[in-house]
Amino acid sequence: MNQVIKELAQKNDRKIVFLIMDGLGGLPREKGGRTELETARTPNLDAVAAESECGLHTPIGMGITPGSAPGHLALFGYEPTQYPIGRGVVAAMGIGFPLQAADVAVRVNFATQDAEGRITDRRAGRIPTEKCAELCEVLSAVKISGVEVFMRPVKDYRAMVVFRGKGLSDHVEDTDPQATGVKPHAPKASSEQGKRTAEVTAEFVRQALGLLEGRHPANAVLMRGFAELPTIPGMGELFGLRGVALAVYPDYKGVARLVGMDVVEDLADLDAQGRALKKVWADHDFFFVHHKYTDSRGEDGDFDAKVKEIEKVDAFLPSLLELGPDVLVVTGDHSTPAVMMAHSSHPIPFLIHAANLRPDGTTEFGERACARGAWGVVPGTTLIRLALAYADKLAKFGA
Amino acid sequence: MNQVIKELAQKNDRKIVFLIMDGLGGLPREKGGRTELETARTPNLDAVAAESECGLHTPIGMGITPGSAPGHLALFGYEPTQYPIGRGVVAAMGIGFPLQAADVAVRVNFATQDAEGRITDRRAGRIPTEKCAELCEVLSAVKISGVEVFMRPVKDYRAMVVFRGKGLSDHVEDTDPQATGVKPHAPKASSEQGKRTAEVTAEFVRQALGLLEGRHPANAVLMRGFAELPTIPGMGELFGLRGVALAVYPDYKGVARLVGMDVVEDLADLDAQGRALKKVWADHDFFFVHHKYTDSRGEDGDFDAKVKEIEKVDAFLPSLLELGPDVLVVTGDHSTPAVMMAHSSHPIPFLIHAANLRPDGTTEFGERACARGAWGVVPGTTLIRLALAYADKLAKFGA
Repeated sequence: MNQVIKELAQKNDRKIVFLIMDGLGGLPREKGGRTELETARTPNLDAVAAESECGLHTPIGMGITPGSAPGHLALFGYEPTQYPIGRGVVAAMGIGFPLQAADVAVRVNFATQDAEGRITDRRAGRIPTEKCAELCEVLSAVKISGVEVFMRPVKDYRAMVVFRGKGLSDHVEDTDPQATGVKPHAPKASSEQGKRTAEVTAEFVRQALGLLEGRHPANAVLMRGFAELPTIPGMGELFGLRGVALAVYPDYKGVARLVGMDVVEDLADLDAQGRALKKVWADHDFFFVHHKYTDSRGEDGDFDAKVKEIEKVDAFLPSLLELGPDVLVVTGDHSTPAVMMAHSSHPIPFLIHAANLRPDGTTEFGERACARGAWGVVPGTTLIRLALAYADKLAKFGA
Repeated sequence: MNQVIKELAQKNDRKIVFLIMDGLGGLPREKGGRTELETARTPNLDAVAAESECGLHTPIGMGITPGSAPGHLALFGYEPTQYPIGRGVVAAMGIGFPLQAADVAVRVNFATQDAEGRITDRRAGRIPTEKCAELCEVLSAVKISGVEVFMRPVKDYRAMVVFRGKGLSDHVEDTDPQATGVKPHAPKASSEQGKRTAEVTAEFVRQALGLLEGRHPANAVLMRGFAELPTIPGMGELFGLRGVALAVYPDYKGVARLVGMDVVEDLADLDAQGRALKKVWADHDFFFVHHKYTDSRGEDGDFDAKVKEIEKVDAFLPSLLELGPDVLVVTGDHSTPAVMMAHSSHPIPFLIHAANLRPDGTTEFGERACARGAWGVVPGTTLIRLALAYADKLAKFGA
């Protein structure tokens, strides 16, 4: 369908905003109760919903729990199953690393191991980003014959490494055991193609453990998401959009870069995102505003804190509306119910607001209210199409 | 899916009627207001809706604005993106021109140009059909070596030309600049294949301008929609249906012919359509009854007039019901909101009425009411399947 959309896309000055609350969808805390979003006091969202068309969306498909990258790809109009993106690439793009074709990017967690090499903390006591940067400097001493190694901090205990050289491939399995009390896996090729890279990785780990010796709690590295750059047509090429991302967290900037968006750097919070939005308003027509902490508090299992994060976004909304977007979509990239402390497959509520549509009588922005909205449950990839249509950016199909 | 349907299709005497109001879907005229259909007094449609299953459909996909031909193809069960139909073919089929494989059909508008050859009126003051027919006679004097030229009137200022000869192709761009104050484009091939046809077209235009000299306001021709006949399996072959079209306008007869329907000619209005329906009732089992003026009044931006056209169809409904169709579908091929004065992407309300179904509590045939109906928003291509099923024309799938 995106080939059809590409042929119909027409440019104009209308502005589309996607306001994304990460992990927005939730579940009731107790039987008969309300979800996080249904609990939150959201007078501004409710007022917009009353003039909107509402529904729920599934980013990948019914019953599929989306990771953050595919969840966002769907929102940006890309079928996630067609464009698998490894975690390593997301990390590299997120920090703006100039990834080249055939580079292999890998997410690295600094971790803590005991004297026997068993992992005791998969996040090295959540060391701060500055510490992470310092350790990446230390690891830049790693030398591997025929391979360039780029080690970079991401955030907190998260870093990434890129291997560049001949004969490398991303066919390598994670070394992260996803558990404590056990040793990391030895690097292992998942196909013949990955053998050289598995050897390179083993050598990297060997040298890294030497360099990190005595640097407790960050005395080990866990590697996952071996990935090469996928080929994805940009939102400019596909939809004629000039997009820009206003996100605090690196991973979301990474996905945005991958689909050709500009990225505003150094945004600390919603206030900063709002100020930046005003600055880039004139030069773009697609705005991706991302709020991370709804997901974080869901992952923490903190229902009330997630409610508060939603209320923060509600309080932010009027300043966004003042800019007068022609089309506003408010939704999430997946559900993260606090009661599950994890991403889930539950569909995510959305509203789309524009001049020419049929308000569907939804007076409260919530999961159950949106389920009774005009659109029912739709694929997440269709939201961008609706937005393009309501911004008059799609020509008529056929005579 | 149509391959599956084809294998399941079974014939019986049950009658299916598709009553299509062109451009039926609408939008509220003012904030908080009702759409054209919601405004119209439709006691008969409302009564049928109360015994029906209702929903909304998107002929091509969410956010895609359908042209008339693809909108109808979807209603007849054909995925419009799989069967692109050029405007020229629609025009030729519409007037019953016996198009052959490899013919190139082109829509021609008579237009007005000034002394410098700049277009001042793209519709030549909307000359009547008789004038158009007279001018087509004049242009039948065009002679091009190795090419047969068939010039025929369509309606008002609209005509069509068919080029028949060796080495022709539809890979030629429109000469219609879609604007006034500028000259028409010179005929240009869109690929190597189209070169000969572009030359033929240039010669056609050269001779036509000579023949039309002094015939102001129709002293120029604009050409668009160069097209060859696509290969589409008929509704008989796919669904086992013997279909017939009862339409006033040529283009809709054209699409109906393309999918193998019989066509009743010379129908002036709904009364004539109703009388013709009785005559063809015994010999067919699929009846396509088309009302054009809902779309026309929407395109005019005349909300109240569109409301009246809907009410006319409502008044027509009882005479149709007297025939006792086994399945009745009432819907449109796309939306044409008067406030937009154009086709739009908004989903179109539908009802399906038959003996064995679950009335869903819809008591008013309207966009918002149908959104709360049993089916939600479905692809337009699925309506024919529902109709076949409810007419018991589809066998069980699998043991």
